[in-house]
Amino acid sequence: MFEKYFSERIKNTPSSFIREILKVTQNPEIISFAGGLPNPISFPQEELKISMNRIADKFGAKIYQYSTTQGLESLREFIVQRYKKLWNMDITVDNVIITTGSQQALDLIGKAFINKNDKIMVEKPSYLGLLQAFQLYEADFVQTKLNDDGLDIENLKHTLKTHKPKLAYLIPNFQNPTGLTYTKENREAVFEAIKDEDMLLIQDDPYGELRFSDEERIPYIGLNQTEKNIYLGSFSKIVTPGMRLGYIIANKEIIRMAETAKQASDLHSNIFGQYLIADYLQNNDLDKHIEKIKKLYKTQSSAMVNAMEKYFPKTVKFTRPKGGMFTWVTLEEGKSSVDLFNIAIKKNVAFVPGDPFYVKERNVNTLRLNYTNADEKTIEEGIKRLAEALNEI
Amino acid sequence: MFEKYFSERIKNTPSSFIREILKVTQNPEIISFAGGLPNPISFPQEELKISMNRIADKFGAKIYQYSTTQGLESLREFIVQRYKKLWNMDITVDNVIITTGSQQALDLIGKAFINKNDKIMVEKPSYLGLLQAFQLYEADFVQTKLNDDGLDIENLKHTLKTHKPKLAYLIPNFQNPTGLTYTKENREAVFEAIKDEDMLLIQDDPYGELRFSDEERIPYIGLNQTEKNIYLGSFSKIVTPGMRLGYIIANKEIIRMAETAKQASDLHSNIFGQYLIADYLQNNDLDKHIEKIKKLYKTQSSAMVNAMEKYFPKTVKFTRPKGGMFTWVTLEEGKSSVDLFNIAIKKNVAFVPGDPFYVKERNVNTLRLNYTNADEKTIEEGIKRLAEALNEI
Repeated sequence: MFEKYFSERIKNTPSSFIREILKVTQNPEIISFAGGLPNPISFPQEELKISMNRIADKFGAKIYQYSTTQGLESLREFIVQRYKKLWNMDITVDNVIITTGSQQALDLIGKAFINKNDKIMVEKPSYLGLLQAFQLYEADFVQTKLNDDGLDIENLKHTLKTHKPKLAYLIPNFQNPTGLTYTKENREAVFEAIKDEDMLLIQDDPYGELRFSDEERIPYIGLNQTEKNIYLGSFSKIVTPGMRLGYIIANKEIIRMAETAKQASDLHSNIFGQYLIADYLQNNDLDKHIEKIKKLYKTQSSAMVNAMEKYFPKTVKFTRPKGGMFTWVTLEEGKSSVDLFNIAIKKNVAFVPGDPFYVKERNVNTLRLNYTNADEKTIEEGIKRLAEALNEI
Repeated sequence: MFEKYFSERIKNTPSSFIREILKVTQNPEIISFAGGLPNPISFPQEELKISMNRIADKFGAKIYQYSTTQGLESLREFIVQRYKKLWNMDITVDNVIITTGSQQALDLIGKAFINKNDKIMVEKPSYLGLLQAFQLYEADFVQTKLNDDGLDIENLKHTLKTHKPKLAYLIPNFQNPTGLTYTKENREAVFEAIKDEDMLLIQDDPYGELRFSDEERIPYIGLNQTEKNIYLGSFSKIVTPGMRLGYIIANKEIIRMAETAKQASDLHSNIFGQYLIADYLQNNDLDKHIEKIKKLYKTQSSAMVNAMEKYFPKTVKFTRPKGGMFTWVTLEEGKSSVDLFNIAIKKNVAFVPGDPFYVKERNVNTLRLNYTNADEKTIEEGIKRLAEALNEI
């Protein structure tokens, strides 16, 4: 009845594949690797309860009043200090804007930068939330092949030459959906290829803090070498996603435009949540807390990889994540993970078929598994069921 | 340096006039009627502190985890029950989506409904946050004249006939910026004029609960008579704006589209805040709380109106609000409120010149005054200073 009123952009946006899947997986008998939820261990509940009472006593009405669009200065200052320490970035609070989760960062960038049919380069496969967000600004996506060590450099050069993208969106650490990480060498080669291009580079990094090994962190692509980099970060995977707090770090001119877009989008992010997270960060050892999350995820990741090695047919490939929340499975050429899903769901195990992570391809032979929300025993049982399904496809 | 990357839509969006004004009014010696902040009395701080501890104990990890896009069901259920009680609306939780403040409701509607150059009807003057939000979807605004009793019916009919708008956006109760309220008769005449038009009607109602007198509430335009109505509401003026929680009530098909838009915009609104407000509402008497706010605002409003009557030249007109947070001043024809602002600021009093509330007109002779954030004595002193400025223009 109302379709005639809808905008073209929304008519062209598919309703979320994942949402449909989550409906099917409500059944408690189903072991679901379909979600992308952080484990509740990552929420420092006791500490947050102390912090909420402290900010209520300390700041009174301020935690309930309207606030500035750019976000709470003390929270932005924490981010500045952390990125200075980790990356030696030369930034101030004016280079940071707080967003309503990283998802809003994507929306604001879409709003402020994308004209209809602008070429946007993304990984193949890419984060589906990004594809949805930019689709609403009628972006014309070009996908560049992702290898085990990062972007395929030849394919990247071809993409740049052929399409001249205006923006690129990459997740170099423990990528969603593949779990892959770009090596240092790959990042350098990527920067070499793009540095003279007329293109902004967005590096989304929700999982970067969740590195399982003690190896050194790998610097961002073009870190401290260009003003055309936009960095996205989030508190969702290391403190709480429920508060919806992420941020953009970029040149001040870009931040100002994001601020104009944000003012029209939601005025500002929940200020109570900003005071709460800032207080938590100021009064607790974040790195110690992150260690706890990493230890758990590493165990869960190993349990999944080990079970896949044990139960999966040898023709099935999968990534071995060094951090983050996902692994990515590739079936034999020609098989469809949607078909597999339909068999698997009858065996009470669920995952996300690869389709929504691609711009055009459908009935692909890839799928995403999340391991952060099940214990080792459940992971093994789920993978066993999935292996049975694999034998029937 | 980065301008070449910006989208056309953002290049055409002026940075907020009000933000610029707020910078000037930082000086503590200035009496500012420029803001639009609710008085802190409207935040039930003690009760919210009890509620936050209760939800932490009761719901544990859930208040920190990812949640559904449409919003917490218990909060949507509260809204359903309240609108059933007040307006006998035949709705369920599926007719409600929680938004990150009312501002996000505007953004989602823009995203889901507005194509470039679509005709959108708004009041003259209209809420500047709406103009900003829809400007980013490249709406073509048509403004319909607002009289003391509501929309000018002849002008409305002319607008409808000439422009055939796809959407109309109205604030029938204690409008921002004018403080005006549409009479019952006017609402009926508006509905009579629009009911056969191919147009959706958005009624934004952040101030409706703040009616100073005990007179009966006036029903919405076309209440319960059409499925083409979209109602916007907010907890910002009656509980807390800092949590950024508003909502849309509409036909399910419209809600589903808003949900798709919201998923791409911020996944969901802060779930902690939703649990908090729902718990507060379930355990406290909202109407009793609202009485306290209304009593204060009525006193402040009277103080401002009385002072304007006492000090302003007789050539200056102003509205006498029956609720809400603003009054609207009209200078003699030909005078500019921007010029007045420049004189007033030197006398340490500030307000918002009318310009940003109009689509095209500049250097208008109108201005907005907010009375909710100053005590009676300060209001009188501020109006006295403004009267002096009026004598110099």
